[in-house]
Amino acid sequence: MASGVAVAVVGATGAVGETTLKLLEERRFPVKSLRAYASERSVGKTVNFSAERIPVEKLSSSSFKGIEMAFFSAGAAQAKEFAPMAAAAGAVVIDKSSAFRMDSKVPLVVPEINAHTLRGHQGIIACPNCTTIITAMPLKPLHDSGRLQRVVATSYQAVSGAGVKGIEELRRQTEAWVRGDPIEPRYFAHRIAFNLIPHIDSFGPDGYTGEEKKLINEVRKILELPDLAISPTTVRVPVFTAHSIAINAQTELPVSPDQAREAFRRFPGLQVWDTPGENRYPMPVSVEGQDDCVVGRIRQDLSHARALNLWVVGDQLRKGAALNGLQIAEGLLRQ
Amino acid sequence: MASGVAVAVVGATGAVGETTLKLLEERRFPVKSLRAYASERSVGKTVNFSAERIPVEKLSSSSFKGIEMAFFSAGAAQAKEFAPMAAAAGAVVIDKSSAFRMDSKVPLVVPEINAHTLRGHQGIIACPNCTTIITAMPLKPLHDSGRLQRVVATSYQAVSGAGVKGIEELRRQTEAWVRGDPIEPRYFAHRIAFNLIPHIDSFGPDGYTGEEKKLINEVRKILELPDLAISPTTVRVPVFTAHSIAINAQTELPVSPDQAREAFRRFPGLQVWDTPGENRYPMPVSVEGQDDCVVGRIRQDLSHARALNLWVVGDQLRKGAALNGLQIAEGLLRQ
Repeated sequence: MASGVAVAVVGATGAVGETTLKLLEERRFPVKSLRAYASERSVGKTVNFSAERIPVEKLSSSSFKGIEMAFFSAGAAQAKEFAPMAAAAGAVVIDKSSAFRMDSKVPLVVPEINAHTLRGHQGIIACPNCTTIITAMPLKPLHDSGRLQRVVATSYQAVSGAGVKGIEELRRQTEAWVRGDPIEPRYFAHRIAFNLIPHIDSFGPDGYTGEEKKLINEVRKILELPDLAISPTTVRVPVFTAHSIAINAQTELPVSPDQAREAFRRFPGLQVWDTPGENRYPMPVSVEGQDDCVVGRIRQDLSHARALNLWVVGDQLRKGAALNGLQIAEGLLRQ
Repeated sequence: MASGVAVAVVGATGAVGETTLKLLEERRFPVKSLRAYASERSVGKTVNFSAERIPVEKLSSSSFKGIEMAFFSAGAAQAKEFAPMAAAAGAVVIDKSSAFRMDSKVPLVVPEINAHTLRGHQGIIACPNCTTIITAMPLKPLHDSGRLQRVVATSYQAVSGAGVKGIEELRRQTEAWVRGDPIEPRYFAHRIAFNLIPHIDSFGPDGYTGEEKKLINEVRKILELPDLAISPTTVRVPVFTAHSIAINAQTELPVSPDQAREAFRRFPGLQVWDTPGENRYPMPVSVEGQDDCVVGRIRQDLSHARALNLWVVGDQLRKGAALNGLQIAEGLLRQ
């Protein structure tokens, strides 16, 4: 593949697809050719890549002829139908949907954490849920420092996690509020402007949402800790594109805040902004557009001798989605 | 006092002061006379009470002559200076500031939880921090059901917690964003529109904020559990007037979600909205303007056999501040 890769982006007009196109260019990914796929209603549109306008084509069974690498950021149903076809046609699929994440034959990869699992892939590689990735980033070095025992994770998730429609909904509702017009929910179950919705994905019989279950199951798979105790609460907030997670992490061995800071600093893809005396800690608007996840508010849990509190923020469209997918692709090229 | 109470509202032009005036009327508190005090720059303004316009007077050492009950919602410095004068003049002071909360001679009261501590008052009664009150409301019945052992509390706090200036800041920044103008922080340390600020009150040497320490110390005092393990994270969110708290609560005896729901339903001042299948759970915009705090998302912690997760929302200006103060006054009248 050294002379360049024949790439397909599936879901090219979505928020993650657009970010994938931007990052392919920004990171000088060796693209030999690029095809953009989306659903029928996007056909006729174009997407921008490297000063070219690429026509959006309808995804079909013949879309993957000659494709070497396919970035999927369509829904799970599309992925289930078309990813196996792409793999059968010889492409490596990097899928952002939930379709294959918990499939034991499919690696679920955050390259900084478990790139070694790429070796066993069989044509499809899954990219974790956005909140999972950003939560797992500081958990890995913390586990390596003191062995994780229990995690209470409470999220503040941006509307971009729901795609272009989520971003448009917050924008439209905010504009309506300023005009004094009624605020109608169209996409989310309730109004999101100046509100919080403690409900992402659908509810299961135990009262947890799909998003919360993903966080449990995917963090366990990525960290290779199948029994890790994780207690999640996921909440949609009126923020555009960065997710934040308040993490309470209990370890088997004590890890001091200084030891944690040092471990985070050494970990690729993580930054530490933790000088509260200078009002410096990560926030969605300051982390948006950044590739690295940022940890701050690192402090000893005053209620438990072997627990820390921390606050991690990551760009949902970058490390939470498109960037992680591209890093997987870069890892494959290096192999 | 049966024929009516001579009332003073100190900080009458603030967000909590305005709500106090509204609630005195709404709840038909037996007001014989009402005086409104604020700082010098509000003198000349009037406030509305019961179809009357009350002139705002400058707070001074002679403000409390003949006053029987004084609602203070000025800052801690004002309270420290003037509350003892008011008490010496024979008024009962109900103070919303942090000035006297941890004073062992001052009751810190949430009437549904510890109204009995009113009996010992010496002229000043403290009203807890807004996030503390809303967090403590479900913790009390949970403690009575299973004895609390450890609480991890993660907050989503409205801008009204910072008063009129906080509300104006979110409004102004949102309007600037819609116009495409730059967004300048004036009151909060950073931009709040479409952002999260994990910083409320000032930081201590251990990395916790004053707000987080208040939550620990005040919940312990209110619940009369001086050693309760509490791990707080407090975050400002772009929401106007209701606070939300994600609570992970571990008890000595197991409490099932159904038992917890039943205990919450029986507890005065609490409602349960917990039918996720109908997308029903408390949210800031649906709880705003309500007197009761509302609990939802009640579920077994999958990581701990004796822990529950829950989500509580309360109107910061009502139960979080003015209403709680007024309920204290009503309790005193009944005694």
